[in-house]
Amino acid sequence: MPLWNIYHPPGAYSAEDKQAIAQAITGVYGRVMPKFYVGVVFQEIAPDSFFIGGEPATRFVRISVDHIARTFQSDERRTSFFKFINKLLEPWISDRGFDWEMHVDETPFDLWTIQGHFPPREGTEDEKRWMAENRASARTHA
Amino acid sequence: MPLWNIYHPPGAYSAEDKQAIAQAITGVYGRVMPKFYVGVVFQEIAPDSFFIGGEPATRFVRISVDHIARTFQSDERRTSFFKFINKLLEPWISDRGFDWEMHVDETPFDLWTIQGHFPPREGTEDEKRWMAENRASARTHA
Amino acid sequence: MPLWNIYHPPGAYSAEDKQAIAQAITGVYGRVMPKFYVGVVFQEIAPDSFFIGGEPATRFVRISVDHIARTFQSDERRTSFFKFINKLLEPWISDRGFDWEMHVDETPFDLWTIQGHFPPREGTEDEKRWMAENRASARTHA
Repeated sequence: MPLWNIYHPPGAYSAEDKQAIAQAITGVYGRVMPKFYVGVVFQEIAPDSFFIGGEPATRFVRISVDHIARTFQSDERRTSFFKFINKLLEPWISDRGFDWEMHVDETPFDLWTIQGHFPPREGTEDEKRWMAENRASARTHA
Repeated sequence: MPLWNIYHPPGAYSAEDKQAIAQAITGVYGRVMPKFYVGVVFQEIAPDSFFIGGEPATRFVRISVDHIARTFQSDERRTSFFKFINKLLEPWISDRGFDWEMHVDETPFDLWTIQGHFPPREGTEDEKRWMAENRASARTHA
Repeated sequence: MPLWNIYHPPGAYSAEDKQAIAQAITGVYGRVMPKFYVGVVFQEIAPDSFFIGGEPATRFVRISVDHIARTFQSDERRTSFFKFINKLLEPWISDRGFDWEMHVDETPFDLWTIQGHFPPREGTEDEKRWMAENRASARTHA
């Protein structure tokens, strides 16, 4: 469900960094939804192709996220989420002297499939099974 | 209108595969709208930059689509569309042992231009001309 | 706030072209919001990975934009914006014989952070300071 696109300068992250970041992000969502819902794509963008305020972005990380499976149910949840992500990404962003920006879009739950299946609704038996097995499967409940 | 972004592992598809996939997708939309509305972008993402559930995505195809020209008018249309796409992509995804996920966002019709023209509404004379000529042109009707 | 993704054929633009385009775009938004809100990402897509209407897009520029900080307040503003962009990009698109398509999505203001800060609302003292200083900082007003 969440699809994270992370645009970063060339060489900003090693393969180990990227896996660690992806696992940290997956850990956040994985407490409340199947882990395999979490997609993270890293894209290196050279400074001559990446501009912030019209200037080459040599030290900038731009994160664009689509949320699909869940929408924020309250302002408190929303602000906690961003505070949490903020803290979570610190070692790879502010601690390394990068500037950053992040935005999230919420896209329609009903226009989403995994392995051709429409994912089950939050809290259903089917979702619990998907979460326990960490894979998509045909629904067994209505 | 639809803009398909297909993230796939390096070497997953030949140039011929990619054209065949793009033509199959274009065929679906092209029955009801101008073919040139259909954009398909393939992006190879190396396993060290592409994670599903925190693990390197060596055999995963992640499709993200923006629908602009049309919104689904009923649940039946919506589910048929996904079933159809499912079947359509089988030869390039499940038949090759790839896992996959796809989600669609619907973005505002009014915030969309082609060659600087705001596209005509569905079913109008102008849209019929765009479809017949397979190119954008100035409107001749209000 | 606006994040511009520009997909273009290999070699379409020099580093100088890309900076000039990014600065032109930044100039448009920078009159009414902090310049550092404007992100522009160029991505070269080879013709064997980029299809319009099922055919390789050898001369096509596809622009996908997320608007976050502002929504269009009237039809007039909306059409003027697109007319203006049209004219602005002419030297790099139609004047060079490229075809093009552009669409904008509007994503939630509340799901957006810069340097970990939720940006201030339009017209506030904090926004004026961010604009004057051209950088994000903690809010000093409620």
